[in-house]
Amino acid sequence: MYEILKTINSPADVKKLNAADLETLAGDIRDALFNRLTKIGGHFAPNFGIVETVIAMHYVFDSPKDKFVFDVSHQSYTHKMLTGRKNGYIKDECFAEDSGYTNPEESEHDLFNIGHTSTSISLAAGLAKARDLKGGKENVVALIGDGSLSGGEALEALDFAGSDLKSNFIIIVNDNQKAIAEVHGGLYKNLTELRETKGTAKNNFFKTLGLDYVYEENGNDIQAMIRALQKVKDCDHPIVLHINTLKGKGYKPAEENKELWHWCMPFDKETGQWHYDFSAESYTSLTAGYIMEKARKDKDFVVITPAMPMTAGLISEQVRAQLGEHYVDVGIAEEHAVAMASGIAKAGGKPLVVTNSTFMQRCYDQISQDVCINNSPVTILLNFCSFDGLTDVTHLGIFTIPAFANIPNLVVLAPTSKEEYLSMLDWSVEQREHPVMIIMPGNAVSSRAVDTDFAEINTFKTEQAGEKVAILALGDFYQRGQELAAEIEKKSGFKPTLINPRFASGLDEKTLNGLLKNHQLVVTLEDGVMDGGFGQSVAAFYAATAMKVKSYGLHKEFYDRYDPQELLKRLGMTTEQIIADIEKMI
Amino acid sequence: MYEILKTINSPADVKKLNAADLETLAGDIRDALFNRLTKIGGHFAPNFGIVETVIAMHYVFDSPKDKFVFDVSHQSYTHKMLTGRKNGYIKDECFAEDSGYTNPEESEHDLFNIGHTSTSISLAAGLAKARDLKGGKENVVALIGDGSLSGGEALEALDFAGSDLKSNFIIIVNDNQKAIAEVHGGLYKNLTELRETKGTAKNNFFKTLGLDYVYEENGNDIQAMIRALQKVKDCDHPIVLHINTLKGKGYKPAEENKELWHWCMPFDKETGQWHYDFSAESYTSLTAGYIMEKARKDKDFVVITPAMPMTAGLISEQVRAQLGEHYVDVGIAEEHAVAMASGIAKAGGKPLVVTNSTFMQRCYDQISQDVCINNSPVTILLNFCSFDGLTDVTHLGIFTIPAFANIPNLVVLAPTSKEEYLSMLDWSVEQREHPVMIIMPGNAVSSRAVDTDFAEINTFKTEQAGEKVAILALGDFYQRGQELAAEIEKKSGFKPTLINPRFASGLDEKTLNGLLKNHQLVVTLEDGVMDGGFGQSVAAFYAATAMKVKSYGLHKEFYDRYDPQELLKRLGMTTEQIIADIEKMI
Repeated sequence: MYEILKTINSPADVKKLNAADLETLAGDIRDALFNRLTKIGGHFAPNFGIVETVIAMHYVFDSPKDKFVFDVSHQSYTHKMLTGRKNGYIKDECFAEDSGYTNPEESEHDLFNIGHTSTSISLAAGLAKARDLKGGKENVVALIGDGSLSGGEALEALDFAGSDLKSNFIIIVNDNQKAIAEVHGGLYKNLTELRETKGTAKNNFFKTLGLDYVYEENGNDIQAMIRALQKVKDCDHPIVLHINTLKGKGYKPAEENKELWHWCMPFDKETGQWHYDFSAESYTSLTAGYIMEKARKDKDFVVITPAMPMTAGLISEQVRAQLGEHYVDVGIAEEHAVAMASGIAKAGGKPLVVTNSTFMQRCYDQISQDVCINNSPVTILLNFCSFDGLTDVTHLGIFTIPAFANIPNLVVLAPTSKEEYLSMLDWSVEQREHPVMIIMPGNAVSSRAVDTDFAEINTFKTEQAGEKVAILALGDFYQRGQELAAEIEKKSGFKPTLINPRFASGLDEKTLNGLLKNHQLVVTLEDGVMDGGFGQSVAAFYAATAMKVKSYGLHKEFYDRYDPQELLKRLGMTTEQIIADIEKMI
Repeated sequence: MYEILKTINSPADVKKLNAADLETLAGDIRDALFNRLTKIGGHFAPNFGIVETVIAMHYVFDSPKDKFVFDVSHQSYTHKMLTGRKNGYIKDECFAEDSGYTNPEESEHDLFNIGHTSTSISLAAGLAKARDLKGGKENVVALIGDGSLSGGEALEALDFAGSDLKSNFIIIVNDNQKAIAEVHGGLYKNLTELRETKGTAKNNFFKTLGLDYVYEENGNDIQAMIRALQKVKDCDHPIVLHINTLKGKGYKPAEENKELWHWCMPFDKETGQWHYDFSAESYTSLTAGYIMEKARKDKDFVVITPAMPMTAGLISEQVRAQLGEHYVDVGIAEEHAVAMASGIAKAGGKPLVVTNSTFMQRCYDQISQDVCINNSPVTILLNFCSFDGLTDVTHLGIFTIPAFANIPNLVVLAPTSKEEYLSMLDWSVEQREHPVMIIMPGNAVSSRAVDTDFAEINTFKTEQAGEKVAILALGDFYQRGQELAAEIEKKSGFKPTLINPRFASGLDEKTLNGLLKNHQLVVTLEDGVMDGGFGQSVAAFYAATAMKVKSYGLHKEFYDRYDPQELLKRLGMTTEQIIADIEKMI
């Protein structure tokens, strides 16, 4: 097992191998990928498809002198194994040593923490520019593909590289004919044309941008890739090496269902069954249910996903096909998704844009300018906003409120139950007054009768009227607030007030002023970073009064691969810790 | 004067004109542009260059049934004159009725408030999508050009339109061979090739994206444009109409110096002299001075502008040429600018990215992911952050702190004088520890000896130690704080504490805790929106103590074309008003 891989401690060891050993190495790497991915999950098909290319890269180039930038860095597992980090794949006890992305703290062969798409060409262009200023001669290589080319940042960078870089710069375009789901965009039609003509088509997207171009049909053939890379190595100008690969190569189920296997949960290798219950009710499945029903009934409704349909629960092409013209996947193009939604809303449509919170960061300006200045009734629904969701530093959703809730005109809603979530969603899609962002709960689905009227913006719901202490428990943290209220009553002998703010983007001044009469302390709970967040706005509201405010939430920090429950404890946010604080304050 | 223009009350009136009258109308429009622009300034060359095209658009199409979206909408003045708003150009007393951009509040012919670049294709794609859902047949037309094509949002939208729109969609690409400054990007080389071959070049950027394409050489010829538009009208698929125009046409100085005349101050038509003293010292000119000197001395230094060199004081090609390889204009491509800077910093370079605050909104994600997660020592310098700067709703800089200061690892500096500004700039460029954003002061240049050591992050400077009331006067508002402190001492007989926070992105807890001893009130002053801003973080710091905090700043609102001094008064922020508040509170 891992016969050759075990001998690889750095790229120098790769260079010593003969052709047969390189093939064995590729097999070892796939075995190691299976070992890690069956047990802890991760990006599957992108890594299986790029094994040969990355082996060839390390065979031909001289990392870390030559510099590699992996777009999204979800195709970097082979690179990690070849640069001293194989134990993170072959030894179960070492899995935690390696993140799922490139990480400079792990290795000098990794230059950036990367997790968002379409950044590699810009980052690499910067490396090339600095090299030129310093008079260096090393190769700079960006590996991009798997749908990332359609992102604005990548397109801007290609346009720049095609005219303004005058020195060595190699862009490997890994064309596996997929984004996460299907590819979208005219560009991909051109890639198809280029593949079908073995790179000779007259009309060539890259050449129109001024870039030199070569094509390699056999991206999964190590020797072919070695020859292709040797041709572009040390080249004195920017060049695109367009390679054709098979996403998921080496595992039949993944080759056949590339979308499902883009990223996987732990699974059984023999059967291909994931250790995960897809049928369980979740906020994602509720979302899909709402979308399917709404699209059937309302000709003006349209759901837009920037390449992440699964985050809206639209987990297969068959499901999406049922939506017909009420579904638009724009591919990886968040900015376009949000701006187009504004156009749709302006013309009387009812657009719902869905993606993960972390990816919506691309659209701060589009939300502000294209949507909110124009007061377009667009609904933006964000998944994975919770501290208890994605914990990789590049995928945190904990900045949702600070990033967006301070944009004027945007109504940010934080539902606390299934009923509230679905009624907020429907209210938002139907109303014509406001741009709305909805934070999809990260909790397990809970049920609770709620007030379903949201037309009066910034009205909080007092769920339990009490005294002394008022708990403002926002969104996902409402249940914590309930628990806290019950514990206070049990331990301290008085009944605190419990409020469901519902709105994360504005204060209910009437309710807050009302608390001044018989409360001395307001406790705010929010599932995200406090700086620029909800609790701070409450603190500011009371700042000139005698009311004390104590806010709980995360700190302004890039947390990375933390244990959520341990983090809560470290931040003093368990019910016991909060009660201890309160006892000191009242 | 305005013989024909005076007869135009709506597009219907344009359609009645014969060819000669249309020519006269074009002359009238230029006269009207002169009338407004000589007196109050505005976008000059973009509007002078597009007169004939817009006349032809209204002659051929039927607005508002057919829908026009003007990119940046800085080329919309002719459109405004032809849609009932000529008085805003020909009658001086009506200038204030029209904004410098499209504005739905002014006319049903304007669909969006637009002021940022590269949004028109996405917005128009949304209009087209909604039309198709509703079964409409109207034409949807986006007019883009003048450098805007290189922005990621536009590139994403072109890629989308080329594959996913299957109905009428007309993109007029106004190719005037300029961005604000020179065009940058390989795409513009392709436009040149297309112009030189009258649209017949085999390699065609638009066609590679799946878009149909036609070329019109005479974009400043009304009849030629009418014919060209008639050809694409009612077409049943997306098509690009690439037109060649002369930026600044009709005014020699502008035709000859298109960059200077992109936007103008009030000027004398005969001499071309602006009523503006370019030689006066300003923070912009100080910036240029720093950049020129630094580039001469330091081979690792590089300044990057996304198409806005003038905002860094680099106001001519000659000046920029002196910078050589230490200057990179990426064109309109903010995302690429910031991400590339991270790459430069990572490889040991010293990148300084400069633009207007409002345009940096495009880069929330790049600042967070490409720069801050990676702790790359990039300096981002923002101009026009003050409420007393650009007052168009689409160009406000007042969101700088809420938008960016809550991003972890980013050090946001708010200088209070020339000396502090220049030393912050140099400190930031030289240090290797932090991503830094510097708020260029919007005040008149002031001079003041300051502490120039910023290495200890988040250390505030107590400029005057006093009692009872502490004034935290941030950045641009430091001088207001000084005045307030002096007035309090004069009127109330005690000496308040005056603090220059310097850092807008973190609190000096030692200093703030120290105030608890002999102060009862902290007053914060900031030049921007308070929600998510500096004052709120101070309020949150003291929320559980007896310290009262009163914050002054702008509200979370899209202000539009306001009088800055009147706004201050309306918000209760004059020194007199603040003193009245304080007297009530202590």
